[in-house]
Amino acid sequence: MKKVLVLHGPNLNLLGSREPDVYGHQTLADIDNMLKAAAGKEGAELESLQSNHEGVLIDRLHQTLVDNTLGVLINPGGLTHSSVALRDAIAALKIPVVEVHLSNIHAREPFRQHSYIAPVAAGQVSGFGATSYLLALQGLLATLNKSNCS
Amino acid sequence: MKKVLVLHGPNLNLLGSREPDVYGHQTLADIDNMLKAAAGKEGAELESLQSNHEGVLIDRLHQTLVDNTLGVLINPGGLTHSSVALRDAIAALKIPVVEVHLSNIHAREPFRQHSYIAPVAAGQVSGFGATSYLLALQGLLATLNKSNCS
Amino acid sequence: MKKVLVLHGPNLNLLGSREPDVYGHQTLADIDNMLKAAAGKEGAELESLQSNHEGVLIDRLHQTLVDNTLGVLINPGGLTHSSVALRDAIAALKIPVVEVHLSNIHAREPFRQHSYIAPVAAGQVSGFGATSYLLALQGLLATLNKSNCS
Amino acid sequence: MKKVLVLHGPNLNLLGSREPDVYGHQTLADIDNMLKAAAGKEGAELESLQSNHEGVLIDRLHQTLVDNTLGVLINPGGLTHSSVALRDAIAALKIPVVEVHLSNIHAREPFRQHSYIAPVAAGQVSGFGATSYLLALQGLLATLNKSNCS
Amino acid sequence: MKKVLVLHGPNLNLLGSREPDVYGHQTLADIDNMLKAAAGKEGAELESLQSNHEGVLIDRLHQTLVDNTLGVLINPGGLTHSSVALRDAIAALKIPVVEVHLSNIHAREPFRQHSYIAPVAAGQVSGFGATSYLLALQGLLATLNKSNCS
Amino acid sequence: MKKVLVLHGPNLNLLGSREPDVYGHQTLADIDNMLKAAAGKEGAELESLQSNHEGVLIDRLHQTLVDNTLGVLINPGGLTHSSVALRDAIAALKIPVVEVHLSNIHAREPFRQHSYIAPVAAGQVSGFGATSYLLALQGLLATLNKSNCS
Amino acid sequence: MKKVLVLHGPNLNLLGSREPDVYGHQTLADIDNMLKAAAGKEGAELESLQSNHEGVLIDRLHQTLVDNTLGVLINPGGLTHSSVALRDAIAALKIPVVEVHLSNIHAREPFRQHSYIAPVAAGQVSGFGATSYLLALQGLLATLNKSNCS
Amino acid sequence: MKKVLVLHGPNLNLLGSREPDVYGHQTLADIDNMLKAAAGKEGAELESLQSNHEGVLIDRLHQTLVDNTLGVLINPGGLTHSSVALRDAIAALKIPVVEVHLSNIHAREPFRQHSYIAPVAAGQVSGFGATSYLLALQGLLATLNKSNCS
Amino acid sequence: MKKVLVLHGPNLNLLGSREPDVYGHQTLADIDNMLKAAAGKEGAELESLQSNHEGVLIDRLHQTLVDNTLGVLINPGGLTHSSVALRDAIAALKIPVVEVHLSNIHAREPFRQHSYIAPVAAGQVSGFGATSYLLALQGLLATLNKSNCS
Amino acid sequence: MKKVLVLHGPNLNLLGSREPDVYGHQTLADIDNMLKAAAGKEGAELESLQSNHEGVLIDRLHQTLVDNTLGVLINPGGLTHSSVALRDAIAALKIPVVEVHLSNIHAREPFRQHSYIAPVAAGQVSGFGATSYLLALQGLLATLNKSNCS
Amino acid sequence: MKKVLVLHGPNLNLLGSREPDVYGHQTLADIDNMLKAAAGKEGAELESLQSNHEGVLIDRLHQTLVDNTLGVLINPGGLTHSSVALRDAIAALKIPVVEVHLSNIHAREPFRQHSYIAPVAAGQVSGFGATSYLLALQGLLATLNKSNCS
Amino acid sequence: MKKVLVLHGPNLNLLGSREPDVYGHQTLADIDNMLKAAAGKEGAELESLQSNHEGVLIDRLHQTLVDNTLGVLINPGGLTHSSVALRDAIAALKIPVVEVHLSNIHAREPFRQHSYIAPVAAGQVSGFGATSYLLALQGLLATLNKSNCS
Repeated sequence: MKKVLVLHGPNLNLLGSREPDVYGHQTLADIDNMLKAAAGKEGAELESLQSNHEGVLIDRLHQTLVDNTLGVLINPGGLTHSSVALRDAIAALKIPVVEVHLSNIHAREPFRQHSYIAPVAAGQVSGFGATSYLLALQGLLATLNKSNCS
Repeated sequence: MKKVLVLHGPNLNLLGSREPDVYGHQTLADIDNMLKAAAGKEGAELESLQSNHEGVLIDRLHQTLVDNTLGVLINPGGLTHSSVALRDAIAALKIPVVEVHLSNIHAREPFRQHSYIAPVAAGQVSGFGATSYLLALQGLLATLNKSNCS
Repeated sequence: MKKVLVLHGPNLNLLGSREPDVYGHQTLADIDNMLKAAAGKEGAELESLQSNHEGVLIDRLHQTLVDNTLGVLINPGGLTHSSVALRDAIAALKIPVVEVHLSNIHAREPFRQHSYIAPVAAGQVSGFGATSYLLALQGLLATLNKSNCS
Repeated sequence: MKKVLVLHGPNLNLLGSREPDVYGHQTLADIDNMLKAAAGKEGAELESLQSNHEGVLIDRLHQTLVDNTLGVLINPGGLTHSSVALRDAIAALKIPVVEVHLSNIHAREPFRQHSYIAPVAAGQVSGFGATSYLLALQGLLATLNKSNCS
Repeated sequence: MKKVLVLHGPNLNLLGSREPDVYGHQTLADIDNMLKAAAGKEGAELESLQSNHEGVLIDRLHQTLVDNTLGVLINPGGLTHSSVALRDAIAALKIPVVEVHLSNIHAREPFRQHSYIAPVAAGQVSGFGATSYLLALQGLLATLNKSNCS
Repeated sequence: MKKVLVLHGPNLNLLGSREPDVYGHQTLADIDNMLKAAAGKEGAELESLQSNHEGVLIDRLHQTLVDNTLGVLINPGGLTHSSVALRDAIAALKIPVVEVHLSNIHAREPFRQHSYIAPVAAGQVSGFGATSYLLALQGLLATLNKSNCS
Repeated sequence: MKKVLVLHGPNLNLLGSREPDVYGHQTLADIDNMLKAAAGKEGAELESLQSNHEGVLIDRLHQTLVDNTLGVLINPGGLTHSSVALRDAIAALKIPVVEVHLSNIHAREPFRQHSYIAPVAAGQVSGFGATSYLLALQGLLATLNKSNCS
Repeated sequence: MKKVLVLHGPNLNLLGSREPDVYGHQTLADIDNMLKAAAGKEGAELESLQSNHEGVLIDRLHQTLVDNTLGVLINPGGLTHSSVALRDAIAALKIPVVEVHLSNIHAREPFRQHSYIAPVAAGQVSGFGATSYLLALQGLLATLNKSNCS
Repeated sequence: MKKVLVLHGPNLNLLGSREPDVYGHQTLADIDNMLKAAAGKEGAELESLQSNHEGVLIDRLHQTLVDNTLGVLINPGGLTHSSVALRDAIAALKIPVVEVHLSNIHAREPFRQHSYIAPVAAGQVSGFGATSYLLALQGLLATLNKSNCS
Repeated sequence: MKKVLVLHGPNLNLLGSREPDVYGHQTLADIDNMLKAAAGKEGAELESLQSNHEGVLIDRLHQTLVDNTLGVLINPGGLTHSSVALRDAIAALKIPVVEVHLSNIHAREPFRQHSYIAPVAAGQVSGFGATSYLLALQGLLATLNKSNCS
Repeated sequence: MKKVLVLHGPNLNLLGSREPDVYGHQTLADIDNMLKAAAGKEGAELESLQSNHEGVLIDRLHQTLVDNTLGVLINPGGLTHSSVALRDAIAALKIPVVEVHLSNIHAREPFRQHSYIAPVAAGQVSGFGATSYLLALQGLLATLNKSNCS
Repeated sequence: MKKVLVLHGPNLNLLGSREPDVYGHQTLADIDNMLKAAAGKEGAELESLQSNHEGVLIDRLHQTLVDNTLGVLINPGGLTHSSVALRDAIAALKIPVVEVHLSNIHAREPFRQHSYIAPVAAGQVSGFGATSYLLALQGLLATLNKSNCS
């Protein structure tokens, strides 16, 4: 069975409570459930982890090297703009990693327009709220299918 | 019926012939047909235009003000990084515009990492090849549904 | 009879409909009529052209070399900040060109504070809405009178 | 009666003697007289002050808070590019302030292309020599009329 | 009872041992005791945490959303200049957060002059050694009183 | 008796009238009275001066070399970001100078994030409105006590 | 027969009339005739197009994919410094493209020293007036011969 | 007995599996064993720690203040380029710290050319693969001998 | 008789008292007397003015237009690096102005390496303490002699 | 007889041996012979010098002032991007100097895109391998003929 | 027999006399003797050259192409930060070149943090005084052994 | 007897022939003779060297360590802006070195405004033509006298 990992970076545990007009009313649990349902329909198993600790996210990414994960969705939160170590962890994997953002990061502060993650990600989806995750999941599955076929 | 416009910017007419290992083997007609089929399933009508002329793209965007278009997908090609006029045209519309890129523009030359379009777009999808357009269409439809409901 | 050309760049055809609280309720036709009346009082004939195409604007500027135009008002819209070709076209003329902006471009995004046009223009007027054009016309006529006398 | 203040910044007292081919032969007194005549026709009273002292200019701007001045024309001279304090003084007023420059500052040294004043001014006029002041006065009066009517 | 949280970032556990001529001879325990005494006089309860882990600091900030904390003092240490995630955690809270630094960070290396935290903090105090914390506590309490009254 | 000087830079005379939602309703006289009362309790005499003239502020700082002033509070206003001469005047004194700002300057325009004064000040307090001055006074007195004791 | 395309960008139609001391007295027709003669001697057919429209130039470049053109000379004029779309069009071709400039662009304004075209061109010739085109033609033919032989 | 600490930063646990053509086939355990053998020959005891957590590395560095460690080798991985807190931890120690990199970081992405660690390190060795560690160990021991003698 | 003006900018009145190891023990009066004696030997009259007010310095420079001054020595102090208005005042004069600095400004903070004055000065002397003024005076007199002769 | 000097800068002596896929298989002697033959056909004498010493190249350029050289071809190698002294030597000559590069320097490292030489050269040719020299020679001869005729 | 070249760049001949507290008391002869002894133990012959002439260093590097040198140690001194020609010479060799610095260049002036040499060197050692050379020699020999084996 | 060295950098041998309106009609021999005469009057012996070779200038500076030279005048020409090695050579000397420029380098190209030499020079004189050298000599002698006395 296809196994997909979803990683939520710092502060995403606050979803639903924090600035709902910007980030929507859905909690992270809502999003994970929605993703699991969607993944299930495509015959994929989905595991989710949120952490405010850069090191925990990196450790979990490394685990994919030994647990048959086929692809990763990651919303790196603020680490997007500051973590070279997270970038290196992604670059070290051999599976596709898709970068997700709820909001349009390009319409915010200038420092949010630079992403350390983007150059080592397979693709990006941003600006569609919780739907960003759904689209990213489909993009990831399409990427996996394509490489399976070729 | 929901009407969606797809705009393809400069050089995208070459799709399928140009650097297939980067951009894939699908032609622009293939992509448009795929999108029309997908839109049809969602009860939406889709119109497509490719142009190498900045002015033609702007003129077409303006037309949406009078032809009931509900949303736009745009792959601005090289104009992404140089056209303030295209940005202004998008900002002048009242309907959501989603930015699409076939390749991961963040993994290419530094000047491709700045987008004049992103800050005025509703969302972005990039890096999934032709699938980027499909995901963007779904993102656009989800955005339209959300605003219809609220 | 003095002949004056007014060029309106990309997106200015939307005037009156687009963000009226920023740009006012007057349409471009209103402005052109206002300018023609004002020019008429000063014994000048005024011709106006709007285009979203950089090339059309350049072609029209070149025509002034053979049609007795004595001066130009130009609101280059978004091309102000990106078009070297438009700048070169203006620099190639021997008649004065005045740069006009409806809004105070200096109070907007940072990239709007650089103008490729300003260094080759005779003068600039910005921030007075439709009145900017009227003041620019007077400035142009004063410039023409001054060079006639000397 | 409408009262308008004209402020001339550092070195403008030299007008007429200093680089006449750049700044023209008119003295500051000539310009003030021309402006007073023009203001009179519009039923406005005009007061003028030149100073080479940043503090004197700021003090005078503050006075407008208590002396019924309805608008200000200011040519900040070299302070345009260096004085945050002057900018703050203008931002603290509730009346429109129009920025004036005799020459086309964008065609000179690079440091002259940044204006601390422009973002807090209602509008700018530059490049028309002494006529810049006349156009700025009309722009100011138009601005005042518009806000009176609405 | 008013509850205040004090967060000390990386390396502040070394206080008293590390470069005493720069940071003084007081240990972190000394400072916490001093702060508790001062808070007690104002009828406020004070809890303190030091960590060298960005994630631990963020987790603790999130807890304030459910434990009735009314305000936070934070000395983010080196994270001041590099952590977008910490900034986002502070921005997500609804209570005032005051930034504290023992030394005058502006008189040190250039990279210490940029703070990711400052734009989302209610205020800053720096340069007074251990006294910086005392002043920040008073500033925080004054801020809380003010918002209680209004 | 301890003598303390309080210097208020350009535009601070407008306090109370100018943007009260940003700067509060207290006038500069209110603040000075509050500071004098606070200083009196600590056995210190306080003298205050506001000026919109850089030179007047520098002259007054120089006077402290001969009038037994033990420390200075300064809110340099807009000069914070532009005056090297004011910085040099402070650097030339042998007594501590504390920099005060009413608002959080780091949450405003980018050019306000650079302070010429900070590197030569003993400490900074910003963001607490009129309370910033009170905290700065206490910080200054603590600094003076510390150097008296050692 | 070898077929070569010569593209002249914006404003080059003015050659001969515009600033003859900088660009020489030859018109574009003179240059094209000179090039055709030179090409004919080498057994090559030469077609020429001038346009002020970025899109027209891109469309024409695309045509070379189906019309047996073996190489291109392009003087992109002001688009050299601003057009990513033109660069992408050149990069998409499989034939050599040589960049030509009449004047020494490095001795002019700083923004003219950056070329979007140069990194995707086979070579550059600049500074020799109309002769630049002749040298570029020879360089192109030499490049074609070399790749034919190997 | 001399005690030396070796710290391996984020992602170095993957050594041997990750991009062997860049980083070689040796695992981290291989390197640690090699280092322990080399240290033993010099009469030094060596302890090693790898962590993907910035905070764990800082905590361990602090422990050297109380456990008789005489020197540290550190390969900070991606934290080299982003962690001010790690830099501060090193600067707070009184023992020499040597920075090690397996690859030539200067031949990679531009952001890898800035090191927050280098200015507070005693020396650097980079580019020799696993041998970098051996050379760094010798450099550290030489540094310790020198300071013992003087 | 040749008349020379010496202008001393902000903070130079403190000379002799302020940081004598950097600026020497001579007071400004000592320097002026030394300069007057030296000027007298060359048959020149010397007038001196120190001010901490930018405006006073500009006013005095303007006066040279009507009082037969043949040349100026100026040590602009901190205004060197921030005053466009002072630069404009110097540029407006027709007599040579020599820039003097006591210390080697290039060996201090980076912002002191940019001089607004240098490009409009006839020459500069810096780094020789009070002797800088003497050398500058000789340089000025040599410049005056040269232009008298030619 | 026309005399032309060809200067080859640092490392060009290695031509033919060094990276033949980039620079071709021709040695510098091959190129010089090719150039001499071409020059002979045009009735010009050609002298060639290669040196890895900046000073030797400058000395040789100075000699042209006394040895009837009519023009220079120079491939400054790495000095292109670092030598102000070489630029000054070229600027001091009264004869045309043409800059030559074998490879397309604009398609290499960013620091190779800045040329100190270009602004003082008559023209540039780059990207055609050894043919670059031949084209440059023709460009130089054309330049010399033109100035002879006029 | 393995042959190794050691190149010392500008000013290194002064070692031992110049700033001994920074560079140590050993002369260059001491270092060369130490290196020769160390090389001898490893069965390698070592030749050394110091020069203040960029060209001499480049010439000597070229010679390694014909004299069986297997590897190079280079301390480029000040040329590290300014010589593109030296970089090109190193890049043209096929043998490994190791960059050595006595002091920690990253703890000095900002311009010393950029090395033109590092990207084309096999590795770097810096900060260990004369020991830097010894470690670099070992690194070079290890590199040579590795490539011999594989 | 006091011994002074005068070093003239690249291209200064051309003085008198090169751009006389900028650099004057005096040859370098004229200047050296003038300097020797002036030095003689002060009881100082003067030796002069011009070279276009960076290495020769550095070698000569090193010789002053063993030949009793008491001070150096240097006009580094173009090396001022590019040579770190020359800067290091000057920094290694224990005698004062004065930087001289004939023209006002601050009124020329932007890259001429940065001097590697200035921060390690005792003082600078520029802009007075040949007189710059005379003033620099006097400044050097004054510096030597001062250090002799103290």
